[in-house]
Amino acid sequence: MQIDIQRNIGVSLSKQIYQSIVDRIRSGLLEEGLKLPSVRNLSKELEVSLVTAVKAYKQLEQDGFVNSIQGKGTFVKTKIKEKKREKEAIPSYDWQLSLQDYLPRSQFARYHMAPQKVHLSSSMIDPKLLPNRYFVHEVQQVLSENPELLSIYGNVQGDSQLRSEMSTYLKRSGVLSTPENILVTSGLQQSIDLIARTFVGPGDVVIMEAPTYPGAIDIFRGRGATILTVPVDKDGMRIDILQNVCEKNKPKVIFTIPTFHNPTGVVMSLKRRKQLLDIARSIHCIIVEDDPCSEIYFEKKPPVTLKSMDQFGNVIYLRGLSKTIAPSCRIGILTASGSIFNRLLAAKANADLGSPLLTQKAILPLINSKRMIDHTKKLRTALKIRRDLVLDLLTSLSPEGVSWTIPEGGLNLWISLPSWIDSHFLLSEAKKQQISFLPGTACFTSGQENNHLRISYSYINEELLTHGITTLCNILHAMISSKKISETPPYTIFLG
Amino acid sequence: MQIDIQRNIGVSLSKQIYQSIVDRIRSGLLEEGLKLPSVRNLSKELEVSLVTAVKAYKQLEQDGFVNSIQGKGTFVKTKIKEKKREKEAIPSYDWQLSLQDYLPRSQFARYHMAPQKVHLSSSMIDPKLLPNRYFVHEVQQVLSENPELLSIYGNVQGDSQLRSEMSTYLKRSGVLSTPENILVTSGLQQSIDLIARTFVGPGDVVIMEAPTYPGAIDIFRGRGATILTVPVDKDGMRIDILQNVCEKNKPKVIFTIPTFHNPTGVVMSLKRRKQLLDIARSIHCIIVEDDPCSEIYFEKKPPVTLKSMDQFGNVIYLRGLSKTIAPSCRIGILTASGSIFNRLLAAKANADLGSPLLTQKAILPLINSKRMIDHTKKLRTALKIRRDLVLDLLTSLSPEGVSWTIPEGGLNLWISLPSWIDSHFLLSEAKKQQISFLPGTACFTSGQENNHLRISYSYINEELLTHGITTLCNILHAMISSKKISETPPYTIFLG
Repeated sequence: MQIDIQRNIGVSLSKQIYQSIVDRIRSGLLEEGLKLPSVRNLSKELEVSLVTAVKAYKQLEQDGFVNSIQGKGTFVKTKIKEKKREKEAIPSYDWQLSLQDYLPRSQFARYHMAPQKVHLSSSMIDPKLLPNRYFVHEVQQVLSENPELLSIYGNVQGDSQLRSEMSTYLKRSGVLSTPENILVTSGLQQSIDLIARTFVGPGDVVIMEAPTYPGAIDIFRGRGATILTVPVDKDGMRIDILQNVCEKNKPKVIFTIPTFHNPTGVVMSLKRRKQLLDIARSIHCIIVEDDPCSEIYFEKKPPVTLKSMDQFGNVIYLRGLSKTIAPSCRIGILTASGSIFNRLLAAKANADLGSPLLTQKAILPLINSKRMIDHTKKLRTALKIRRDLVLDLLTSLSPEGVSWTIPEGGLNLWISLPSWIDSHFLLSEAKKQQISFLPGTACFTSGQENNHLRISYSYINEELLTHGITTLCNILHAMISSKKISETPPYTIFLG
Repeated sequence: MQIDIQRNIGVSLSKQIYQSIVDRIRSGLLEEGLKLPSVRNLSKELEVSLVTAVKAYKQLEQDGFVNSIQGKGTFVKTKIKEKKREKEAIPSYDWQLSLQDYLPRSQFARYHMAPQKVHLSSSMIDPKLLPNRYFVHEVQQVLSENPELLSIYGNVQGDSQLRSEMSTYLKRSGVLSTPENILVTSGLQQSIDLIARTFVGPGDVVIMEAPTYPGAIDIFRGRGATILTVPVDKDGMRIDILQNVCEKNKPKVIFTIPTFHNPTGVVMSLKRRKQLLDIARSIHCIIVEDDPCSEIYFEKKPPVTLKSMDQFGNVIYLRGLSKTIAPSCRIGILTASGSIFNRLLAAKANADLGSPLLTQKAILPLINSKRMIDHTKKLRTALKIRRDLVLDLLTSLSPEGVSWTIPEGGLNLWISLPSWIDSHFLLSEAKKQQISFLPGTACFTSGQENNHLRISYSYINEELLTHGITTLCNILHAMISSKKISETPPYTIFLG
């Protein structure tokens, strides 16, 4: 097993091994029933003491992730024996199990895409809130006028017309980027991935907010980064703590979602934005400003972007169009300056030679159209109604000891449970009633906090939202009133 | 500078440093006028002797890549002074230059996309040979019938209908894959990238054919792989040499393009295919079978795929649809078995959360339609005519000492020049007449052979092909008859 052990980061080695294995199990990378390496082999391979390896395995067993069978070894726990038999690997593929990989974690998609009737896990827009017929008409027209576009490759940087439209579009958010400094990507996930593969390697320090967007953790972990975290409060990332962290460990990248932070929905204050820029400038590090939904504000416009105040080329700004216009096109952009931009462009060439031209041309007529501007206004209203509904439901139905953030925009809110409740257990109960949400552990780099969850109010309608939140509150009431759960370890529920 | 130095691979350290810097210059990653680290700093950073660093820099200067200025340092050579001034970096971004990256090479897109009138560098299909109006009609119908598709994300693995169509499509090539074992990717380049990021890390051994597809070299170099090469002859990869290489260095991945090999166009014999599988099985390694254009055969169908004979899950099979159906959709697939497949699926989630749904739905009605089967037949005929034209022109016009392969399918042929001719010099001359091609060095992992070029006969029409090949032959005649070029080093021509 490829486990990156990092010394001198204040986390014990056994905890690191434990977390690595938990992450792989939660990512589906260590499948149920799989035999883990013996403690002896593991300790040799990772150059840690036998005691350390034993401690990690004991904790795994105690928390219900693995089963130790005397004389046979340690196995990833299966839920149901029958299920295991069905899934039994074909023996001739056995050799593959010893093939090492470089995939420590891949959790986000598993939770995000979980198909449930009451889909509180997806921070996507309800298709019913998007102007599909209008969009179809526009795409059909583009194709009629230019049928040859289907038979040509786009270029690596992205279609020049699209970059020009995006330059205009970004101006509305105060981001002044020329088309030459815009790179079209296959969504924000790819934008983050391009930055990581270009600038982050084993041992490089990346600072992230805690909690943060799980898809970004998946990426930076995959690059072997040393990830340090800084908590967020109601004004965003705690800059005072960031300052301390930076003094001890020079980061190469600071990853932030300053506006309608994912998962909490909070907004970084203007003062902190300026302080963050000052720090990055003084220590020569990159700020990744991930901005998926600053257009979805409910009361007032958010403060100006970091990018619009960036004078020294520290900020790489990421914007996606999947949240407001067309999820099926998966179009994102990044904009940066100087040699940072040139290198990201080369990384895009290596990754996929450029995004498909069809999706870029399809979205073109919409971006700056009056129709889309009107649509965005309506979207804000519709989502505010849904957010308010969820807040009202929580206020009237949730048991004592449960708290939540009040997002001023975006698609998500963050709920904190009493510390003894494991959100994975809540999820397994919720799933019985066809409800999904994102367990908070996925939003932490080392899964340190179990008692939070992210709720997205953007994807399902009012009726389903009411049903979902009411049911969740009922489950919580039952858990709290019985409180039995605190005595029994949450066996076999770890897969969410 | 991030330079991977590998000891004990039979290549001197100074040569490795030299090649690393050349690759970055050719990739546009070290820009003109940029100051390189001093030899002293370089030798310290890379832990090599001062003599080694000096030797590398001397060779760079001798070959016209850099300029040493007494007391000032070593600079990447600029072509024209005026041009440099225009491009002068903004001083406030200076700090970015010392920011290390993990991008040793990114050459393919630079050559492939070079916009020239006589485009011999692009192994793409002439848009005029694709059924655009029919395709537009089909896409418009899909959209009319299902407007909501524009507002939904696809899933990570790819649209289930598309995977089902692809399963049927692959059966025609003898590849039996269920939809569950097919992953939709954003083109072959991404398929290769997913494999590399999952299974290849620093020092892992990857075996590639020499020459091979430059985009794959860019990727594996980016992962810090130790790349070993095996030459190809008219029957494909030299399995006897492969056997020797594998005895000394256990590879993790063998990358091959057995059918209409890129760049040479040769086909691996059935016997060698079986031998290759035997080797992979016995040493437990992955074979990546890249198959971009096995449908484009001119005389007889190629031998069965490696994948169709794979019993032990060694083969990851890659197929793209950009070459025959719709370049603007950038759809590729990969198929594999067992835990190898599951891990690649997780890697796709991390890379971009799944390909856009629009392009997948757009291409759906075409894949197995009678119209597309007829189209593919016509395409074979049209491309055979173009290949024959190029072969005829080369036979009648090329100077002595020039040889070429006779591809039995695919889009490319490989031309070898007398060993003293540098194809980069030929390219710089050709560009003056608006002709581009792919210089052979890009197809070698360490640029070891300068005297080859790849010509694609698929993108431009007969008239342009005639003009292009005739002009290239004229330039070659002039070079050979004067032979002056052998005396003067090819200054300032290294960027192609």
